[in-house]
Formats: sequence, C-alpha cells, structure tokens
Amino acid sequence: MQEKSIIYSGTMKAVFLEKQGGPLIVREIDIPKPGPGEVLVKIAAAPINPSDLARVRNMNTDLDTFTPGLEGSGTVVAAGKGILPRLWLGKRVACTHHGIRGTWAEYMVTSAAMCFPLKSKVNFEQGSMTLVNPLTALAFMEIAEAGKHKAIINNAAASALGRMVELLAVKKGIPVINLVRKKEYVEMLNRMGSKYVLDTSDPSFLFELELLSKELNATLLFDSVCSPELQKMIEVLPYNSSVYIYGNLTGAEHININPRSLIDNNIKVSGFFLGTRAGENGLIKNMINLRKVGSLMSSDLTIKIQGRFPLTKAQEAVDTYLNNMSAGKVLLVPNHGDTDYTEITRRSPGLLVS
Amino acid sequence: MQEKSIIYSGTMKAVFLEKQGGPLIVREIDIPKPGPGEVLVKIAAAPINPSDLARVRNMNTDLDTFTPGLEGSGTVVAAGKGILPRLWLGKRVACTHHGIRGTWAEYMVTSAAMCFPLKSKVNFEQGSMTLVNPLTALAFMEIAEAGKHKAIINNAAASALGRMVELLAVKKGIPVINLVRKKEYVEMLNRMGSKYVLDTSDPSFLFELELLSKELNATLLFDSVCSPELQKMIEVLPYNSSVYIYGNLTGAEHININPRSLIDNNIKVSGFFLGTRAGENGLIKNMINLRKVGSLMSSDLTIKIQGRFPLTKAQEAVDTYLNNMSAGKVLLVPNHGDTDYTEITRRSPGLLVS
Repeated sequence: MQEKSIIYSGTMKAVFLEKQGGPLIVREIDIPKPGPGEVLVKIAAAPINPSDLARVRNMNTDLDTFTPGLEGSGTVVAAGKGILPRLWLGKRVACTHHGIRGTWAEYMVTSAAMCFPLKSKVNFEQGSMTLVNPLTALAFMEIAEAGKHKAIINNAAASALGRMVELLAVKKGIPVINLVRKKEYVEMLNRMGSKYVLDTSDPSFLFELELLSKELNATLLFDSVCSPELQKMIEVLPYNSSVYIYGNLTGAEHININPRSLIDNNIKVSGFFLGTRAGENGLIKNMINLRKVGSLMSSDLTIKIQGRFPLTKAQEAVDTYLNNMSAGKVLLVPNHGDTDYTEITRRSPGLLVS
Repeated sequence: MQEKSIIYSGTMKAVFLEKQGGPLIVREIDIPKPGPGEVLVKIAAAPINPSDLARVRNMNTDLDTFTPGLEGSGTVVAAGKGILPRLWLGKRVACTHHGIRGTWAEYMVTSAAMCFPLKSKVNFEQGSMTLVNPLTALAFMEIAEAGKHKAIINNAAASALGRMVELLAVKKGIPVINLVRKKEYVEMLNRMGSKYVLDTSDPSFLFELELLSKELNATLLFDSVCSPELQKMIEVLPYNSSVYIYGNLTGAEHININPRSLIDNNIKVSGFFLGTRAGENGLIKNMINLRKVGSLMSSDLTIKIQGRFPLTKAQEAVDTYLNNMSAGKVLLVPNHGDTDYTEITRRSPGLLVS
C-alpha cells in the first residue's frame, strides 16, 4: 500500500467566517496532515445542510480555525497510522468532519471512522449528501428506543429525512404519525404506504393529533419546523412526552411554550444537533452507526441539486440556498476548476504519522 | 395497640372542583377507609401551595373524585395492615397525599410511608407546611447529582424553598448561583452567607450570569418564575444545560425559547412537578426521602401565615392567596369548628384491613 500514499504539503483554499455572523470568505492555509487513525480527504463535493447554517450563524469562538461543512465526498489521498486509514487510502468516500475543520475546503483531515466508501454506482455529488440524514434518522431511533417511546410524531414528514425516519421506525415496529403541511403531501405519503398522516393546515389538525397521539401513546415529537402551532401541539401531546427540536425551517426567533404543559404534563423540550451527538457517542459508536448507514444509502433516491459553487462563492451559495430551500440542495465543489492545489511530494505513509 | 384504633364511618366534608377550572366547593362524602400500608389522617391544617393551584387549574379528569391538597398535618386515627401504619397510629404527623384524594378534607387516607411524625415543639400549623419544600429540594439534589451538574442556578432564591436548595447543595459541595429580584434580597442572602447572588433587575444581570455560570459550569437552572427574561437567561447558559420549570409565579401564558439555543447549545427544558416524581419514585424511595427530610424540618424557620379558612371557604382561601402570594401562606383548617364529623364506632383494627 505504501506506494499509493501521497503527502500533501503546500496550501489549500478553505472557507472561514470573516467575523461572527459572516460573511463567508476563503483563506489560503496549509494542507493539514492526518494523525493516527485519520485520513486526508480531497473533497469533491460538499452540500449546504440546514445544520451547517445553524453552525455558521452561531459560531462565536475559534473563528480563526473554524471551517464549516458537516459532510461531503472525496478521495482519501493520505492516511495516518492504523488499519482503517490504510484500508480507505485511494478510495472514494462519503465523510463527515470530526473537529473544527469541515468539508468546505479543498482538503479535510477526518477520522477514518467517519468515512464510508461509496458504491461504484454512486457519484461524488449524490455521495456527498449520504451521511447526515441517515445518521440523524438513526439517532432518532436510538432516542426512541432509549426512552421506550411507543410511537413517534414525525414533523416535516415529506422531506428526505422524514421519509428515512418512517422507514427505520416501521422496520423496528414503531408506528409513526407523519405531519405534513399540505393536502398533496398527505396523498403522496398515503400512496407511499404511510398509515398515519396528518395535515397541519387542516382545521381539525390539533384535535386529530391529540386523539391519535393518545391512542398510539406517541410520546416523542421530532420537529424541524418551529411553526407557531408548535405550542398548541405540545399542549395536546400525551403525558410524559419528549420534544426534540432539530431545525427551524420557519426561521422563528423563538418558540412559545406553555409552562403548564411542561409542569403538569411532564413534558421535556430539547435541542438535537447531530454534531453534538456524534461528539458524545465517541468514535466506536459513530463507526458502528456509519456501518448501519449502508443499507439506507442503497436506496435509489436521487436528491435534486439546484446549484454548484466554487469555494470562493461560498457566501453566494448559502444565499442561494436560503433564498429557496425547497428548490433543491446547493453543493460546494472545491476541486472543480477554480482551485490551484498542488500535490507536491510522494513519500511513504510512515512519515505522515504524528 | 388495638384499643387505640378507631374506625371512622359516616361522612366528612371534602373540597372538590364544581367543574373544570373551578370554583372549589365542599361536598359531603363517606369517610374513606385505609387499606394495607395506609393510614387515615384527621387533617388539622393544610396549606395552599403554588403546586396545588397548578393542579386545581389544570385538572380535567376525575373531577368527581379529585380533592386537592398535596400536604398537611393531622393525627393518625386509623391504620390498615402493616408495621408502619400501626407505628403511626395516634401520632401527630405531617403527611402528603398518595392519590386523587388530597389534604383539603376532614380526613385523608394516605400511605403510612407518606407520613412523618411531628416533633413535640412543632405545632400543627407549621407542621402542615414541612414536606413539599424539603422533598422538592431533595429532588433537585437528585437531579443535580444524576446529571453530574457542577453548579446550580437557583431562581426565586430568597423563598423558603430557595433557601433550602442552597442549604442542601452547599452541604454536598455544589456551588449555587442565587437569583433574586431586588437589591434588598442580595444583601439579605449575603448576610446569610450566600457566596453568589445576582439581582435579576440589575442591568448587567445577564452579562454577570453568563460569566459566572460559565466560570462555575452551572448547567442546571431551577425556575419557578417564568419571567420575560427567561429566554435570555437560557441563551447565556453554558453548553449542555438543563432547565427545570417548577412554577409560574408571574402567571405567564407562555415562555419564549430561542430554538437556536436549544439546538446549538444542547439545552433541555423540562417541567418539574413533585407529584409526578413521587409517583415515579415509588413508595420505598419516597419513604427514604421523607426520612431525610427530618434534618431539614429541624430548622427553626417559622413560616408566616396570612390567613386560616374552613373548607367551606376554600375558594375564598385560594383567592386570598392568589391576591398576594408574598404576604404569607394561607391555611385550610378542616377540623377547627366549622365541621360536623362524627366518630361513630370504635373497633379492632383488624376489621379495617381490606
């Protein structure tokens, strides 16, 4: 294997925040070196996820070192010590970050455990979007099982993530109440085989949610919408329910919560962020989860892409995505033409190990 | 012991809700009989606690059987099977309810494990208010220890409960940041030896809270106020903080929470209600906790009483308390003159056992 390893020295482009809150800018920095258990990935494509936007908006420390980008795809071009790093060397992978430096760069060092080889039929663009959603859906299942919840309420159920959540839950025998915001989506999900679908725009929605959640004992709500109805939804949940807020699609400045429902109904409202959870899980757990992801990635779902941008236009890319999040994903393509990285030396991988 | 036991048959007055939301009324019902492990307490005094008000306001099932009143004092006048019931027979006790029938009645059946003998120097009135606060403070310590929190933020810190929380926490070596709403209270708490006291009306309050909570890693906030500042307080808490709402002194219709602080800062907001927790703990745990309460009850703190009402004036009592909660506690005194209960028969306790 040694002859396949290449040391990258020299510099690369990476995205940073000029100051807290933005804008995003590109800086030229040294190409990082993988330590033991790590690999250097030459990034082919990296999507803008809602969770990336949250991190960008709120990062207020380490601005000199923070590069966004939770996931991406690329080729493993250098490996640190360890079996797994050597195994991935030269392979096309999907990967997630494991530190302050993310995928919005020409190269990223990450843990080999955070990489997953791409099947030959999956291209770099589609492959760059394969990890965050399934890992999130898996984490939701862990939450459901740890809390012994009998059924799940799945908001934004028509989204790619929403579909994955139901797929996994049904496999585990956990019923899912799917919430969508339009009548068409009800019909779509019914056609796809969903048993319980409620339309949040229906005047009788809250009444139906109360009945159905009590009937199924659905004590777990995943919400990425933060709509004005959330307060009322929380008020009708069964006793002892948990609410996980993992996004804010409406861009609400705050959610309202009735303290009585918290106190009298023993309700718990938490935030969920995949990065936090991955950090808590530790490497082994993340690796196991990434292996589980395989089956989910094999679905032939093709995700719509509305635009591709070089790193130097990262801010424009984000603005485009924010302008119409339902028009499709926006990708950063760091090594497609606008860059000027140099592969300088080719040495034995032993020298890479710190 | 048999000769001390008395069977109460006949009827008694007890407080009920006329309909959902109130008003409180008195009905004449059969005196209940203690089952195995239970005792019948002739209630001398029962306070109106904020947590009682929450239950009264929100009870919407079992209105035909629900009698409010979380705690009280009285004499154990009949015992069911078991060592503990026999032990308490004839004793003056503080007690909490263990079911749908509370202390706002002439008699209450409760678990013997929920009774605590009163010291001779403690009168019925003071003794009636001795359990809910210490049990709540103990539960807070359990939450702090289970979550491995390094320090606690204690809102409404000048209240009787607030003082107890700091007393217990300091014993356990857990620093407490006390929040009060007036400068006088800062001075009062400083005189009483509190190390960290912040005035929520101070313009620099949030800044100081952020600094101090991060310095001490105070990741646990207990709030019974639900003030408009709560949202901002939550935003400055350290990463991974838990917020427990256990009251709503401002009567806020809702609290505002920034979803970003939940997601990015991994914040959890829960309700706390002692009754829920006692139910989850089970009898043994509650009994152990009640034993622990002993040391707390021995403090010579005398709680101010602003009024005493018979059961027939329960609604007036509640209105009086609501009108000025800081003027002192309001007590119901079921057996002081207005009642007409009859001790009919005196039999062997064996007959009581169901």
